[in-house]
Amino acid sequence: MNSDNQFLRSGCPIVNGLDIFGDKWTLVIIRDLVCGKKTYSELANSPENIPTNRLAERLKMLEAENMLVREQYQSKPKRYTYVLTKKGRDTLPILQEVAKWGNNYVEGTWTPLKSFMEST
Amino acid sequence: MNSDNQFLRSGCPIVNGLDIFGDKWTLVIIRDLVCGKKTYSELANSPENIPTNRLAERLKMLEAENMLVREQYQSKPKRYTYVLTKKGRDTLPILQEVAKWGNNYVEGTWTPLKSFMEST
Repeated sequence: MNSDNQFLRSGCPIVNGLDIFGDKWTLVIIRDLVCGKKTYSELANSPENIPTNRLAERLKMLEAENMLVREQYQSKPKRYTYVLTKKGRDTLPILQEVAKWGNNYVEGTWTPLKSFMEST
Repeated sequence: MNSDNQFLRSGCPIVNGLDIFGDKWTLVIIRDLVCGKKTYSELANSPENIPTNRLAERLKMLEAENMLVREQYQSKPKRYTYVLTKKGRDTLPILQEVAKWGNNYVEGTWTPLKSFMEST
Protein backbone atom coordinates (compact mmCIF):
# COMPACT_ATOMS: atom_id res chain seq x y z
CA MET A 1 0.00 0.00 0.00
CA ASN A 2 1.73 3.12 -1.11
CA SER A 3 -1.01 5.60 -1.87
CA ASP A 4 -1.51 8.64 0.32
CA ASN A 5 -4.75 7.09 1.63
CA GLN A 6 -2.77 5.14 4.18
CA PHE A 7 -1.84 8.41 5.90
CA LEU A 8 -3.91 10.56 8.25
CA ARG A 9 -2.83 13.81 6.62
CA SER A 10 -0.18 13.25 3.95
CA GLY A 11 2.91 11.18 3.17
CA CYS A 12 5.23 13.88 4.51
CA PRO A 13 7.60 12.31 7.03
CA ILE A 14 7.45 15.42 9.24
CA VAL A 15 3.66 15.25 9.33
CA ASN A 16 3.72 11.53 10.14
CA GLY A 17 6.17 12.07 12.98
CA LEU A 18 4.00 14.84 14.39
CA ASP A 19 0.92 12.63 14.08
CA ILE A 20 2.59 10.47 16.75
CA PHE A 21 4.51 12.88 18.99
CA GLY A 22 3.31 16.34 17.93
CA ASP A 23 1.87 17.40 21.26
CA LYS A 24 3.00 18.99 24.50
CA TRP A 25 3.70 15.81 26.47
CA THR A 26 4.94 12.85 24.44
CA LEU A 27 8.48 14.10 23.95
CA VAL A 28 8.61 15.17 27.61
CA ILE A 29 7.85 11.59 28.65
CA ILE A 30 10.53 10.35 26.23
CA ARG A 31 12.97 12.89 27.72
CA ASP A 32 12.38 11.33 31.14
CA LEU A 33 12.78 7.78 29.86
CA VAL A 34 16.03 8.73 28.09
CA CYS A 35 17.20 10.23 31.38
CA GLY A 36 16.65 6.96 33.22
CA LYS A 37 13.15 7.17 34.67
CA LYS A 38 11.41 3.84 34.42
CA THR A 39 8.21 3.68 36.48
CA TYR A 40 4.85 5.36 36.25
CA SER A 41 5.36 7.20 39.53
CA GLU A 42 8.80 8.46 38.50
CA LEU A 43 7.28 9.80 35.30
CA ALA A 44 4.33 11.32 37.16
CA ASN A 45 6.66 13.13 39.56
CA SER A 46 8.52 15.23 37.01
CA PRO A 47 8.46 18.98 37.61
CA GLU A 48 5.96 19.54 34.80
CA ASN A 49 3.20 17.75 36.74
CA ILE A 50 1.75 15.87 33.82
CA PRO A 51 -1.91 15.03 34.46
CA THR A 52 -2.04 11.31 35.24
CA ASN A 53 -4.73 10.55 32.67
CA ARG A 54 -2.53 12.20 30.05
CA LEU A 55 0.51 10.19 31.17
CA ALA A 56 -1.40 6.89 31.08
CA GLU A 57 -2.81 7.65 27.65
CA ARG A 58 0.56 8.60 26.19
CA LEU A 59 2.28 5.53 27.61
CA LYS A 60 -0.38 3.35 26.00
CA MET A 61 0.02 5.15 22.70
CA LEU A 62 3.83 4.83 22.81
CA GLU A 63 3.51 1.13 23.53
CA ALA A 64 1.03 0.70 20.66
CA GLU A 65 3.51 2.51 18.38
CA ASN A 66 6.29 0.17 19.54
CA MET A 67 8.24 3.11 20.89
CA LEU A 68 8.43 1.57 24.35
CA VAL A 69 7.92 -1.79 25.99
CA ARG A 70 6.24 -2.32 29.31
CA GLU A 71 7.61 -4.90 31.69
CA GLN A 72 5.87 -6.03 34.85
CA TYR A 73 8.15 -5.90 37.89
CA GLN A 74 5.57 -6.42 40.64
CA SER A 75 2.37 -8.44 40.67
CA LYS A 76 0.33 -7.21 43.67
CA PRO A 77 -0.49 -4.55 42.74
CA LYS A 78 0.70 -4.81 39.18
CA ARG A 79 3.49 -2.39 38.45
CA TYR A 80 5.43 -1.90 35.26
CA THR A 81 8.64 -0.37 34.02
CA TYR A 82 8.67 1.44 30.72
CA VAL A 83 11.69 1.08 28.47
CA LEU A 84 12.22 2.82 25.15
CA THR A 85 12.75 0.71 22.07
CA LYS A 86 15.18 1.83 19.37
CA LYS A 87 12.23 3.46 17.58
CA GLY A 88 11.43 5.48 20.69
CA ARG A 89 15.01 6.31 21.52
CA ASP A 90 15.65 7.44 17.96
CA THR A 91 13.61 10.56 18.72
CA LEU A 92 16.59 11.69 20.84
CA PRO A 93 18.14 13.85 18.06
CA ILE A 94 14.80 15.66 17.85
CA LEU A 95 14.83 16.28 21.61
CA GLN A 96 18.39 17.54 21.40
CA GLU A 97 17.51 20.00 18.64
CA VAL A 98 14.44 21.22 20.53
CA ALA A 99 16.63 21.69 23.61
CA LYS A 100 19.18 23.72 21.62
CA TRP A 101 16.42 25.90 20.22
CA GLY A 102 14.88 26.37 23.66
CA ASN A 103 18.21 27.35 25.17
CA ASN A 104 18.83 29.82 22.38
CA TYR A 105 15.44 31.45 22.34
CA VAL A 106 13.70 31.05 25.68
CA GLU A 107 15.48 33.04 28.35
CA GLY A 108 16.26 31.36 31.61
CA THR A 109 15.82 27.77 30.48
CA TRP A 110 18.03 25.12 32.07
CA THR A 111 21.15 23.96 30.27
CA PRO A 112 20.74 20.21 29.73
CA LEU A 113 23.47 17.86 30.86
CA LYS A 114 26.25 17.46 28.33
CA SER A 115 25.70 13.70 28.54
CA PHE A 116 22.11 14.20 27.37
CA MET A 117 23.04 16.52 24.53
CA GLU A 118 25.83 14.28 23.27
CA SER A 119 24.11 10.96 23.76
CA THR A 120 23.22 8.96 20.65
CA MET B 1 13.61 36.99 36.65
CA ASN B 2 15.05 33.54 36.83
CA SER B 3 12.73 31.53 39.00
CA ASP B 4 10.68 28.75 37.49
CA ASN B 5 7.54 30.86 37.98
CA GLN B 6 8.20 32.56 34.69
CA PHE B 7 7.55 29.28 32.89
CA LEU B 8 4.28 27.60 32.05
CA ARG B 9 5.49 24.14 33.03
CA SER B 10 9.20 24.15 33.92
CA GLY B 11 12.52 25.67 32.90
CA CYS B 12 13.35 22.69 30.68
CA PRO B 13 14.29 23.98 27.21
CA ILE B 14 12.52 21.04 25.55
CA VAL B 15 9.32 21.81 27.41
CA ASN B 16 9.54 25.49 26.53
CA GLY B 17 10.05 24.71 22.87
CA LEU B 18 7.05 22.38 22.91
CA ASP B 19 4.98 25.04 24.66
CA ILE B 20 5.34 27.03 21.43
CA PHE B 21 5.41 24.45 18.63
CA GLY B 22 4.40 21.17 20.30
CA ASP B 23 1.30 20.50 18.25
CA LYS B 24 0.30 18.90 14.97
CA TRP B 25 0.40 22.02 12.79
CA THR B 26 2.95 24.66 13.74
CA LEU B 27 5.99 22.81 12.39
CA VAL B 28 4.04 21.91 9.24
CA ILE B 29 3.45 25.61 8.58
CA ILE B 30 7.13 26.31 9.20
CA ARG B 31 8.00 23.47 6.79
CA ASP B 32 6.00 25.27 4.10
CA LEU B 33 7.56 28.64 4.83
CA VAL B 34 11.05 27.10 4.71
CA CYS B 35 10.10 25.59 1.35
CA GLY B 36 9.20 28.97 -0.10
CA LYS B 37 5.48 29.39 0.50
CA LYS B 38 4.68 32.95 1.46
CA THR B 39 0.97 33.70 1.35
CA TYR B 40 -2.02 32.57 3.35
CA SER B 41 -3.58 30.83 0.38
CA GLU B 42 -0.35 29.00 -0.48
CA LEU B 43 -0.21 27.76 3.11
CA ALA B 44 -3.89 26.82 3.12
CA ASN B 45 -3.46 24.78 -0.07
CA SER B 46 -0.91 22.29 1.25
CA PRO B 47 -1.88 18.63 0.93
CA GLU B 48 -2.61 18.36 4.67
CA ASN B 49 -5.65 20.64 4.34
CA ILE B 50 -5.06 22.59 7.49
CA PRO B 51 -8.34 24.04 8.81
CA THR B 52 -8.26 27.77 8.06
CA ASN B 53 -9.06 28.84 11.62
CA ARG B 54 -6.13 26.73 12.79
CA LEU B 55 -3.84 28.28 10.18
CA ALA B 56 -4.86 31.84 11.08
CA GLU B 57 -4.40 31.17 14.79
CA ARG B 58 -0.95 29.60 14.32
CA LEU B 59 0.25 32.44 12.08
CA LYS B 60 -0.79 34.94 14.74
CA MET B 61 0.96 32.95 17.43
CA LEU B 62 4.14 32.65 15.35
CA GLU B 63 4.09 36.40 14.73
CA ALA B 64 3.56 37.09 18.45
CA GLU B 65 6.54 34.81 19.18
CA ASN B 66 8.67 36.72 16.65
CA MET B 67 9.13 33.57 14.62
CA LEU B 68 7.75 35.21 11.51
CA VAL B 69 7.01 38.68 10.21
CA ARG B 70 3.96 39.62 8.24
CA GLU B 71 4.30 42.05 5.37
CA GLN B 72 1.39 43.59 3.52
CA TYR B 73 1.70 43.23 -0.24
CA GLN B 74 -1.79 44.29 -1.31
CA SER B 75 -4.19 46.80 0.23
CA LYS B 76 -7.64 46.06 -1.22
CA PRO B 77 -8.28 43.53 0.12
CA LYS B 78 -5.39 43.43 2.54
CA ARG B 79 -3.06 40.55 1.83
CA TYR B 80 0.13 39.59 3.58
CA THR B 81 3.22 37.53 3.04
CA TYR B 82 4.66 35.59 5.94
CA VAL B 83 8.42 35.36 6.27
CA LEU B 84 10.31 33.42 8.92
CA THR B 85 12.69 35.27 11.20
CA LYS B 86 15.95 33.65 12.28
CA LYS B 87 14.15 32.43 15.41
CA GLY B 88 11.54 30.72 13.25
CA ARG B 89 13.98 29.36 10.73
CA ASP B 90 16.18 27.98 13.48
CA THR B 91 13.58 25.27 14.03
CA LEU B 92 14.80 23.76 10.74
CA PRO B 93 17.19 21.26 12.40
CA ILE B 94 14.20 20.01 14.40
CA LEU B 95 12.19 19.56 11.19
CA GLN B 96 15.10 17.73 9.59
CA GLU B 97 15.39 15.32 12.52
CA VAL B 98 11.62 14.70 12.54
CA ALA B 99 11.81 14.04 8.79
CA LYS B 100 14.64 11.53 9.27
CA TRP B 101 12.70 9.75 11.99
CA GLY B 102 9.55 9.70 9.87
CA ASN B 103 11.41 8.27 6.90
CA ASN B 104 12.99 5.61 9.08
CA TYR B 105 9.89 4.53 10.94
CA VAL B 106 6.76 5.36 8.96
CA GLU B 107 6.56 3.22 5.85
CA GLY B 108 5.82 4.91 2.58
CA THR B 109 6.61 8.48 3.62
CA TRP B 110 8.07 10.79 1.00
CA THR B 111 11.79 11.36 0.87
CA PRO B 112 12.32 15.09 1.36
CA LEU B 113 14.42 17.04 -1.11
CA LYS B 114 18.12 16.87 -0.41
CA SER B 115 18.15 20.67 -0.47
CA PHE B 116 15.66 20.70 2.41
CA MET B 117 17.55 18.14 4.46
CA GLU B 118 20.89 19.83 3.98
CA SER B 119 19.73 23.41 4.31
CA THR B 120 20.92 25.40 7.34
